[in-house]
Amino acid sequence: MASSKKKLQGLVAATITPMTEHGEINFSVIGQYVDYLVEEQGVKNVFVNGTTGEGLSLSVSERRRVAEEWVTKGRNKLDQVVIHVGALSLKESQELAQHAAEIGADGIAVIAPFFLKPWNKVRAEEVLDGIQEKIPTFQGLKFSDTDLLDFGQCVDQNRQRQFAFLFGVDEQLLSALVMGATGAVGSVCCFLFSTYNYLGKKTNQMLEAFEKKDFSSALNHQFCIQRFINFVVKLGFGVSQTKAIMTLVSGIPMGPPRLPLQKASREFTDNAEAKLKSLDFLSFNDLKEGNLEACS
Amino acid sequence: MASSKKKLQGLVAATITPMTEHGEINFSVIGQYVDYLVEEQGVKNVFVNGTTGEGLSLSVSERRRVAEEWVTKGRNKLDQVVIHVGALSLKESQELAQHAAEIGADGIAVIAPFFLKPWNKVRAEEVLDGIQEKIPTFQGLKFSDTDLLDFGQCVDQNRQRQFAFLFGVDEQLLSALVMGATGAVGSVCCFLFSTYNYLGKKTNQMLEAFEKKDFSSALNHQFCIQRFINFVVKLGFGVSQTKAIMTLVSGIPMGPPRLPLQKASREFTDNAEAKLKSLDFLSFNDLKEGNLEACS
Amino acid sequence: MASSKKKLQGLVAATITPMTEHGEINFSVIGQYVDYLVEEQGVKNVFVNGTTGEGLSLSVSERRRVAEEWVTKGRNKLDQVVIHVGALSLKESQELAQHAAEIGADGIAVIAPFFLKPWNKVRAEEVLDGIQEKIPTFQGLKFSDTDLLDFGQCVDQNRQRQFAFLFGVDEQLLSALVMGATGAVGSVCCFLFSTYNYLGKKTNQMLEAFEKKDFSSALNHQFCIQRFINFVVKLGFGVSQTKAIMTLVSGIPMGPPRLPLQKASREFTDNAEAKLKSLDFLSFNDLKEGNLEACS
Amino acid sequence: MASSKKKLQGLVAATITPMTEHGEINFSVIGQYVDYLVEEQGVKNVFVNGTTGEGLSLSVSERRRVAEEWVTKGRNKLDQVVIHVGALSLKESQELAQHAAEIGADGIAVIAPFFLKPWNKVRAEEVLDGIQEKIPTFQGLKFSDTDLLDFGQCVDQNRQRQFAFLFGVDEQLLSALVMGATGAVGSVCCFLFSTYNYLGKKTNQMLEAFEKKDFSSALNHQFCIQRFINFVVKLGFGVSQTKAIMTLVSGIPMGPPRLPLQKASREFTDNAEAKLKSLDFLSFNDLKEGNLEACS
Repeated sequence: MASSKKKLQGLVAATITPMTEHGEINFSVIGQYVDYLVEEQGVKNVFVNGTTGEGLSLSVSERRRVAEEWVTKGRNKLDQVVIHVGALSLKESQELAQHAAEIGADGIAVIAPFFLKPWNKVRAEEVLDGIQEKIPTFQGLKFSDTDLLDFGQCVDQNRQRQFAFLFGVDEQLLSALVMGATGAVGSVCCFLFSTYNYLGKKTNQMLEAFEKKDFSSALNHQFCIQRFINFVVKLGFGVSQTKAIMTLVSGIPMGPPRLPLQKASREFTDNAEAKLKSLDFLSFNDLKEGNLEACS
Repeated sequence: MASSKKKLQGLVAATITPMTEHGEINFSVIGQYVDYLVEEQGVKNVFVNGTTGEGLSLSVSERRRVAEEWVTKGRNKLDQVVIHVGALSLKESQELAQHAAEIGADGIAVIAPFFLKPWNKVRAEEVLDGIQEKIPTFQGLKFSDTDLLDFGQCVDQNRQRQFAFLFGVDEQLLSALVMGATGAVGSVCCFLFSTYNYLGKKTNQMLEAFEKKDFSSALNHQFCIQRFINFVVKLGFGVSQTKAIMTLVSGIPMGPPRLPLQKASREFTDNAEAKLKSLDFLSFNDLKEGNLEACS
Repeated sequence: MASSKKKLQGLVAATITPMTEHGEINFSVIGQYVDYLVEEQGVKNVFVNGTTGEGLSLSVSERRRVAEEWVTKGRNKLDQVVIHVGALSLKESQELAQHAAEIGADGIAVIAPFFLKPWNKVRAEEVLDGIQEKIPTFQGLKFSDTDLLDFGQCVDQNRQRQFAFLFGVDEQLLSALVMGATGAVGSVCCFLFSTYNYLGKKTNQMLEAFEKKDFSSALNHQFCIQRFINFVVKLGFGVSQTKAIMTLVSGIPMGPPRLPLQKASREFTDNAEAKLKSLDFLSFNDLKEGNLEACS
Repeated sequence: MASSKKKLQGLVAATITPMTEHGEINFSVIGQYVDYLVEEQGVKNVFVNGTTGEGLSLSVSERRRVAEEWVTKGRNKLDQVVIHVGALSLKESQELAQHAAEIGADGIAVIAPFFLKPWNKVRAEEVLDGIQEKIPTFQGLKFSDTDLLDFGQCVDQNRQRQFAFLFGVDEQLLSALVMGATGAVGSVCCFLFSTYNYLGKKTNQMLEAFEKKDFSSALNHQFCIQRFINFVVKLGFGVSQTKAIMTLVSGIPMGPPRLPLQKASREFTDNAEAKLKSLDFLSFNDLKEGNLEACS
């Protein structure tokens, strides 16, 4: 790994993998995507080839090339490029980890095995117990569950260490900040998508208010974000819908998802666009007087 | 209902129903129980005949008598006595609600139907929509889930109203306070027991720290509570174990649970007692120097 | 209990509780209901106050009166009247069992506790182990799950005894007959309704074919029943829908369900009626030539 | 695909992938494995690289080599070699399917997508609707669920076609035979292992008895198989344990599983061996008089 001095903190966007209409990876827009995250959303960390990025729908060679592109285009712009290297086959996972190190990624991440599982459910608290002895380069944890007992005890029992405790349930990030979270990797609990690609700016405002102990403002920002998530979750939300919204908000063509996922419907996109406008999340919205719902 | 001026806020203890060794209700200790909650734990609201109180294992006539006893003994001592009147039979539920009103209870509560259910899962947010038109005396909500998106949107959409938003997941109450909770009814998510019977004092300290924006102290108190809950949950925790711990901490004999529940094991009680001591939650504990885990 | 010589075998209908439009029990049609089951469907055993009968939505006093009516009206017509006496409160369950004995019911049944549960899932096989020592009058088991490993081992380990092994998943009764089932209590797995109220005749034809080792005919009958169940399950089926269909087929007014259930929609009833006609399950259907789907 | 005249029927063993102590594939024993299945168990069809074979824990290149070995060693001995080509990445799945065709496998199979899923649960009945138009070479279905309504309707609606309906819940195969199953791919519902590797002979006896309409014998054989499965399931059973038992019964070293799975414990193997002996499933067992449990 690159001997990065930049600590992993703040928002981390789980990146979308842009595709052409034929389902091939569209490498040409990744540079533009980097600029958009940094300049428009204030997000300087990315998590590549995760669920939002359809990482497990890509072949191993495709995953290598996507990782390379993010590392190359992110150089001197992004703080951290973390590559997800989880795979059902441990051998392939090891190969991807080796590759991430070779290309100079700032870190790797893996999800726990989910097909052939060992017997018992494992709590994050137990995983962290003694982990520095086993993985000296361990940097931190992405926690994507609403079980704040488990999360809180992770923080409580590892206070001496400089771990990053990244929370992964966007719609209640504020509740984890008060429990000791040091940052966030975008995703919505039980629904696989990351909002920091397009709500990064608003979320950063919440982080700043929290930092200043201005809880009333922080809560207002959180409620605004919840209004949007609450709305789209009811419409049926996932990776496909995230691609459609990101295309809409950023203007960068993210393309359709790869099978087995289906493209988001026109109806969904129209509804989501109207909601984004009513909440004033689209910059080209002329905020009308008397729009009670508007968040800015 | 009694025209109560006292608003429902702060901690609400879901009461245990004390029983004799033969499984009959031990009415004689309820007065002592009231005094213990008020004087030792600083808890002035109770939720009677709920899950913690084995309400659904009692016959209808037993439920009436338990409700009467709490109203009588709580007079001039408790702020609010709320009676749970939920039953599988709507007729019985109506009868219990009528009775609660007659004896001067401060409020009633019902759980949603759980055996013969209507088709779709209902979100709390939807239930609250227009509820004052349907139930003019509606006072508030007990929310016992970790889905803080749903909880947050309940608060967000009902700011104008004076509803009580009581959170019911003890181990992460702090995360709900920051989301706008106005109080708490004790219980632990997915595990049916209430800790405010014996951790009320510690929880009140957390509420006070939060009120003063002393988040560091609030978090310390929350972590202390989590350490205890985290410990007992792993041992297997429920109503039976709550009865055993409450007997231990308060000195009031709560007796065994009624069938189908089984009495807590001796091993459980010994382990829980040792943990309570190490966390300094038992008043008769001589805090030893160097006890790193102690919470006070 | 009445010292019944009639063994519990063959089909058992889980009875509907007829109600008026206002949700009060309509006792006046129970006599007619008995005659319909015996004369039109060939069903001579009933299971009263179960899930199909909304037993847990009735008050204790209502349950007593319903039980009395079935015992009275069924005298000299039905073989066995079994009363479901399960309740969340063990005390009420005991009271109902005592009452069933006093009025001369042929048997009682209880469902396992489902609200405050003991810790581990219990397999039927383990329940039966040594049950005659604990319950000398134990007659048999209603098994409503598709786990035929558990069911098979119940039969395998109790061959010496004269237990009734009643299967409770109507849509695959044939698969349980080959595994040793001795009869059937109507219900559909995961969907709470009983088809023997109106498909009893067709099911009896399947039992007869199986008895004669005419597997081809038995399978044809089973497939016919499956076609109907498969159709209504997709429409959304439950107690409400069962009441509507039974009203349609028998001409006896079963009324709406009690809250929290909602009345079946007109659309459902129309669709179900059309399907019943196409399958020739309605006696007043003029079977048209060339109706390939028709089952008779 | 090889233009196979041999129809897919009877038992299909989901093969184990033999490994060395270091977790590398032990290709050298596959020839011996083929002979054992054919000669000792009477099983002439195999399903390679499925769950039992840890297919998803192998790299793509390993999966290709395992497939080649089974096709080569099975030539003129096995009736059908079916290769599982399912993968999270559709691209890799297509590559594996192409490869299977090139090496002359008799068929391929895929599991439904299980990580990034399309929205609704799909029933097998719906999948089969019109499948011959979409996949002209479609041969049949492996059905591994206890929902015999769905299974029955698959058979009912496709009677005109020559599909293979292979049932995949070993412990209740008899119940599916009566519903129209034409064969079986070994596995146990909710537990990932295949018993036909070592109980093929006994299962074939059940099939023969069923064919002769000797239901009493067929049921005896089924109960015997259930006694074994019932026993091991309680001990905790899976791919690791299947490897251990197969090593024990066949004498062929199957090795440990690959991570994330853990090797079966010594205690498990001892218990399973004792049970196999008591049921007379091990050929080297001297059947003692008075062994009431023995199955032969």
